[in-house]
Amino acid sequence: KINGERLWDSLMEMAKIGPGVAGGNNRQTLTDADAEGRALFKSWCDDAGLTMGVDTMGSMFMTRPGTDPEALPVYVGSHLDTQPTGGKYDGVLGVLGALEAVRSMNDLGIKTKHPICVVNWTNEEGARFAPAMLASGVFAGELSLDYAYARTDLEGKTFGAELERIGWKGEEEVGARKMHAYYELHIEQGPILESEGKEIGVVTHCQGLWWLEFTLTGKEAHTGSTPMAMRVNAGLAMARILEMVQEVAMAAQPGAVGGVGQMQFAPNSRNVLPGKVVFTVDIRSPDQAKLDGMRAEIEQRAADICAEIGVDCAVEPVGHFDPVTFTPELVENVRSAAERLGYSHMNLISGAGHDACWAAKVAPATMVMCPCVDGLSHNEAEEITPDWATAGAEVLFHAVLETAEI
Amino acid sequence: KINGERLWDSLMEMAKIGPGVAGGNNRQTLTDADAEGRALFKSWCDDAGLTMGVDTMGSMFMTRPGTDPEALPVYVGSHLDTQPTGGKYDGVLGVLGALEAVRSMNDLGIKTKHPICVVNWTNEEGARFAPAMLASGVFAGELSLDYAYARTDLEGKTFGAELERIGWKGEEEVGARKMHAYYELHIEQGPILESEGKEIGVVTHCQGLWWLEFTLTGKEAHTGSTPMAMRVNAGLAMARILEMVQEVAMAAQPGAVGGVGQMQFAPNSRNVLPGKVVFTVDIRSPDQAKLDGMRAEIEQRAADICAEIGVDCAVEPVGHFDPVTFTPELVENVRSAAERLGYSHMNLISGAGHDACWAAKVAPATMVMCPCVDGLSHNEAEEITPDWATAGAEVLFHAVLETAEI
Ligand SMILES: NC(=O)NCCC(=O)O
Ligand SMILES: NC(=O)NCCC(=O)O
Repeated sequence: KINGERLWDSLMEMAKIGPGVAGGNNRQTLTDADAEGRALFKSWCDDAGLTMGVDTMGSMFMTRPGTDPEALPVYVGSHLDTQPTGGKYDGVLGVLGALEAVRSMNDLGIKTKHPICVVNWTNEEGARFAPAMLASGVFAGELSLDYAYARTDLEGKTFGAELERIGWKGEEEVGARKMHAYYELHIEQGPILESEGKEIGVVTHCQGLWWLEFTLTGKEAHTGSTPMAMRVNAGLAMARILEMVQEVAMAAQPGAVGGVGQMQFAPNSRNVLPGKVVFTVDIRSPDQAKLDGMRAEIEQRAADICAEIGVDCAVEPVGHFDPVTFTPELVENVRSAAERLGYSHMNLISGAGHDACWAAKVAPATMVMCPCVDGLSHNEAEEITPDWATAGAEVLFHAVLETAEI
Repeated sequence: KINGERLWDSLMEMAKIGPGVAGGNNRQTLTDADAEGRALFKSWCDDAGLTMGVDTMGSMFMTRPGTDPEALPVYVGSHLDTQPTGGKYDGVLGVLGALEAVRSMNDLGIKTKHPICVVNWTNEEGARFAPAMLASGVFAGELSLDYAYARTDLEGKTFGAELERIGWKGEEEVGARKMHAYYELHIEQGPILESEGKEIGVVTHCQGLWWLEFTLTGKEAHTGSTPMAMRVNAGLAMARILEMVQEVAMAAQPGAVGGVGQMQFAPNSRNVLPGKVVFTVDIRSPDQAKLDGMRAEIEQRAADICAEIGVDCAVEPVGHFDPVTFTPELVENVRSAAERLGYSHMNLISGAGHDACWAAKVAPATMVMCPCVDGLSHNEAEEITPDWATAGAEVLFHAVLETAEI
């Protein structure tokens, strides 16, 4: 049994750092608030006797030694960064749930053959710097360090400069660590567990994603004195593309989603037809062929829409991962832990991307999920119950112990 | 004859203040660059022997005395503020053309019965603070001073605070001055004069406008894990409204336009369905019934679109003026001046709004227009020829002299 109260207290302590405007958090990656959250997490890890390593992407690795000096560690973690208007649990539960697991091992005097390493991955959210899961992507060798350092936020600041600025650029080579296995606890961020009345999601797969950044170039012109026939209206092309993305996603039901979260007009003045509109289309599916088919259709139809209006259309993929199948043996550990502990459970496909998706490229990996109220996430109103958190952390604890070998 | 070379030199001098990124200007109202532009303009007016008055909206009134102490001044001007990516002539030509007219009167030793007052109106563009033509609107008694002071930019700064900050809040009560007449020279900002091969536009009317600020409230949610059926997608509602505005404007052809220049997503993160989308629809027509009909149709259809998606839709008018008919006697002065000077000319309806539209509420008023290359304005590439500028200023000079009485 883990200490659910201690876990909840830690969640509430962490939520005080980078408060949002509506009860949630704004602790975006590589901000001062992120640095503050990292320091608090480190102090807790120090108290738990863990040894810190930090890699050159700023990911934090907090290790509890094992009994076999040859055995590779079992990694357990998630992320402490949040969306600009994010919840208190997305990512945080996975990091602090892992910390609670080692705290409980300490309390219970449990020794494991394999070391346990609690991880806080840098920039999972991808809100400030696209793509999401950036540090775990570099760790898995899927993205290069140079590419990561060169990512820019909307103000033009680079990931590399901001990592240095907050003082969390470590020394370790990214990806040099080898993993025996990787586990991640996360809130579902969707409605299924709650509506099915299940306490635990046994995550078998994660859907794949494309982030397609569209840059539409029209002609800046006066909204009043420019006749309709002379307009090269990038805003109109954008509107048609958004509708088309919705249509493509609906046609791909079930098992697909599509939408747009980020949008910039330039010069963004009420009486100027935008010369430039930049936005990112987010499409996902657990089915590789469907996902790639959606991408191809969206790019083709967007090109046609833009050609008709005379707008130039450039598309750059700024985030991608293929659908993931998690490691059956670890998935089974999660299921049997839930079973043993008497928690109701069901299989889930993760709708969101997670660091576990990249970890799965270099190690056996899987996830544990717990419900969240109304399936709401990426919203300050994101909520879970202490019981759900405890159940998730307890299943994590047991599954990890299974793999780490007592 | 005016001195076209001196006028052009002044235009080029002013264009050095608040340079843009592509050869134009970013001298938005109440910025440091605006203050710098005002100071340069004042120094030129000092050299020309004009006396300055500044009202509590920051509008600058630079007076050349007349011979009759009882006679009201003839006002001549426009604005020195620009769009964020604006041209070198929009507004500036009207102010410096008026200044050139009094400089020429000085050179030629011309005395007028009525004083001549060169005006620089504050915040004509409405780019930073909606609505456009803000100071002339207060001057005409159409908008209140309190309303004007409370306007905010995208950073939440108020017009009132920014006016104080740049040090150009004057002492004069707004609108206390009485006008004998008002003339304004402006570039056409549209394609008609150039395509018709005319040097002078005799402006008979100005089309009316509504700026409708839409605030769509949906539900912030994860783009990956939120099923399509559960989305309350404010971005999708926005896209449908933009298409609908285009449709309404096309159905109202000829003699109507509609478009969207300003757009904000919140929280503006790639993997968050926007909880809030704010944008401004700009619709115009010279036909009052058509304009009001478009507004009603757009509001009704937007409400229907939002209801279908479940998005809350609030609409606030943030700018408005009715179609304007300029004063026939003054229009005739412009036409006969062009005729006398041998410039080709035609009647025009102004597509853009101008300070003259508000001045027309309180005095006889009209405008003179000159062509601009490709009809392009509200674009840094906005261009005119020195000959066009000279022709426009010369017609202005003669029409003003007609009204001011030599
Ligand atoms: N879990 C989560 O919200 N990750 C962010 C990456 C994504 O957009 O799926
Ligand atoms: N002339 C001009 O561009 N005025 C700005 C106000 C408008 O949008 O018409």
